[in-house]
Amino acid sequence: MAEKNVKVGLAGFGTVGCGVAKLILEEADSIAVKTGLRLQLACVVDVDTQSPRPVKLPDGILTDDLSRLLDNDTISIGVELVGGTGAARDIQLKMLQAGKDVVTANKALLAEHGNELYKAARENDRCIAFEASCAGGIPIVSGIRSGLTANNISAMYGIVNGTCNCILSNMTAKDVDFSEALAEAQSKGYAEADPTLDINGNDSAHKLAILASIAFGYEITLDDIFVEGIEAISKDDIRYGGEMGYVLKLLAIGQKDRNNRISLRVHPSFIAKDNSLARVDGPFNAVSIFGSSVGQVMYYGRGAGMMPTASAVVTDIIDVALGNSATTFRHLHVRPRSETESLIEKIGDTVSRFYIRLMVKDQPGGVAKFSKVLGDQQISLSGVLQHEGTGPDNTVPVVIATHPAQQKNVTAALKEVEKLEVIGGRPVCIRIVDIPEDKEA
Amino acid sequence: MAEKNVKVGLAGFGTVGCGVAKLILEEADSIAVKTGLRLQLACVVDVDTQSPRPVKLPDGILTDDLSRLLDNDTISIGVELVGGTGAARDIQLKMLQAGKDVVTANKALLAEHGNELYKAARENDRCIAFEASCAGGIPIVSGIRSGLTANNISAMYGIVNGTCNCILSNMTAKDVDFSEALAEAQSKGYAEADPTLDINGNDSAHKLAILASIAFGYEITLDDIFVEGIEAISKDDIRYGGEMGYVLKLLAIGQKDRNNRISLRVHPSFIAKDNSLARVDGPFNAVSIFGSSVGQVMYYGRGAGMMPTASAVVTDIIDVALGNSATTFRHLHVRPRSETESLIEKIGDTVSRFYIRLMVKDQPGGVAKFSKVLGDQQISLSGVLQHEGTGPDNTVPVVIATHPAQQKNVTAALKEVEKLEVIGGRPVCIRIVDIPEDKEA
Repeated sequence: MAEKNVKVGLAGFGTVGCGVAKLILEEADSIAVKTGLRLQLACVVDVDTQSPRPVKLPDGILTDDLSRLLDNDTISIGVELVGGTGAARDIQLKMLQAGKDVVTANKALLAEHGNELYKAARENDRCIAFEASCAGGIPIVSGIRSGLTANNISAMYGIVNGTCNCILSNMTAKDVDFSEALAEAQSKGYAEADPTLDINGNDSAHKLAILASIAFGYEITLDDIFVEGIEAISKDDIRYGGEMGYVLKLLAIGQKDRNNRISLRVHPSFIAKDNSLARVDGPFNAVSIFGSSVGQVMYYGRGAGMMPTASAVVTDIIDVALGNSATTFRHLHVRPRSETESLIEKIGDTVSRFYIRLMVKDQPGGVAKFSKVLGDQQISLSGVLQHEGTGPDNTVPVVIATHPAQQKNVTAALKEVEKLEVIGGRPVCIRIVDIPEDKEA
Repeated sequence: MAEKNVKVGLAGFGTVGCGVAKLILEEADSIAVKTGLRLQLACVVDVDTQSPRPVKLPDGILTDDLSRLLDNDTISIGVELVGGTGAARDIQLKMLQAGKDVVTANKALLAEHGNELYKAARENDRCIAFEASCAGGIPIVSGIRSGLTANNISAMYGIVNGTCNCILSNMTAKDVDFSEALAEAQSKGYAEADPTLDINGNDSAHKLAILASIAFGYEITLDDIFVEGIEAISKDDIRYGGEMGYVLKLLAIGQKDRNNRISLRVHPSFIAKDNSLARVDGPFNAVSIFGSSVGQVMYYGRGAGMMPTASAVVTDIIDVALGNSATTFRHLHVRPRSETESLIEKIGDTVSRFYIRLMVKDQPGGVAKFSKVLGDQQISLSGVLQHEGTGPDNTVPVVIATHPAQQKNVTAALKEVEKLEVIGGRPVCIRIVDIPEDKEA
């Protein structure tokens, strides 16, 4: 079979851009043998054309002029790796208008402006492929879109931010504080100099918006997702939770019940130690998905990094060039916003178990007092552990695990508990997530 | 967008066939919403049209006459779920000649006659889709073919037979004999009445032939694969290996080195307890794949069963109807047999570590004697554990872990060791597989 030439234009020559250029330049032969497609890097656009990069481009293809990419009609695929939601949006729209299919890793942009961009793609009879936007090199987007089409997906639980997972893994393994674990992640290159978007949970929310849209088939926006980060997590709570059999992870959770009520949340979550996600450590990502026919499926791998992410980008380039992305893009539907809004469950209405730590003054009757307040809100306790060690004002940590309770009742109860004379400081409240692991029947 | 009708003909109305019929009948609406395709079950063929089944078909579509499927030109997709390598081969060929694309879960047939069938498909400008042939509901075939195209895959390690995994998990957890664990697996429906193909490793070899062909891009046949089953495994060795930090799994292993030497093996394997595959228990399957860019990716889920397998079949039907399967089938190449043969590494040449158990007569100098024989074959020991307990002829079990050694040297050495007067019975030899887990950098 004759080889088909595929000319690719790359916008954004940072870390992932370098990885993509490297893969296209070095693996063109082996990709041609496997697929019959000869990928050619025709143009690389970046505002910075001077800084040294770890990949050597052919002469003359690096430019700061986007029009050289847009106006080159032999380029059929535009890869946007600029990042962010400003210039990147403009670049993707221009690529689509110039008749190019778009491949991107930009989760923030898709989560915030995806529907505008998908619409623009359809109007121009083009497609947008975004495997690299979620969980790096793990083929999770195609796994859901093409691999589980025969299933109604009822739930997904994902560790989709490697920075947070490094920090929490470190805090767990070494009993160190958040700040120390963050510093170590930064020194290893697993956390940005400004890690805000990662640790506040927003990066995970971006990925959840994308994955939940395709898994559940509804147009989901960031506003639908409750987000809580890991900045306030203390090593004490990780240790106490560990004593109760739990591991702390930042989970991105999407659940759809039989009435199509959709719950979307990113928050620190205690999960059972023997759950498969509990053993996903360091920079790795994993997503467990529950399908109506397939049961549980889990995908695991590196969720970030130059080459893993480049792997997903180049895989998408191939899929676009083969024509598969266009077919998938054209055929897979999400229900519009008007149908979605009323289905999203408010965070106050969600039911979960809770880990609660109170600093209780070491005096008789303390436990009885806060137990009553919790009971008044229909919150019953499944376990209480009083720990040794003292906090401020001669308090001791008392850790509670609750039976399933509604979030709003817990919030109201803790407001009351905080006012009790026997309680020192603010209660700590972390959700316990019972992932319904698909067990041997 | 208008719905497109897709008429499906099903040959084989057994367990998986019932699952596929059920899915098509019950999920047609939701699949239509998601994909724009309306699947219609037009014809179900089985020699047995009388036995009760757990799914009710529309009147008049069940028949024992294959020609009703073949001659119906409105049926574009034929699903072969007859199983085996006799009638099934004939049915697939006839479906292709009748102009139908084929979807199948038949790993034995593809492993033995795949290349003939793929050729017939190409000659008739049709495709064969076989996601369901490997690892049940886990989308592993598309994961490799479409999800990792940008990678050179260097190795795959799979737990791809749920029956063996149930048996070994049970022997490990409950310290029971093989026969007892097999009986329990049978009582739970995880092992067939005749489990031969599963426990002798051949079913895993079928799957490895299929997965390795697409992962490495070479035409691989069953003859290329060394196969050893789990029938002879004793609970003692599982326990002794456990004391040394290993868990026993039946692994399907494919490795390709830098010179394209390909090693393909199915055998009981001791793997490190903290490896992700070590925690895959019971009827679950998992495959770890190592790609040049992506690093390690692992897929996990149910590898068998009516609905998980049906999920993969229906996913394939959708993929075929969308046209994606045809594109993938047309574009993905494997190098022909003539190029493959010389690259396959003979089992004697493979290098591995080994777990060896010898029953040594409890007398001075025993260990020195067999150590010398091993040393003469360049086999050095990384650990020796003498266990309490006695075997026949007043022997005690001595367990050895070796450093990496060539299989043929180990085989030769053990032949000599067996002749030693201090050794009672035959040595037990199980490979220790060091899966190069992609660790935090």
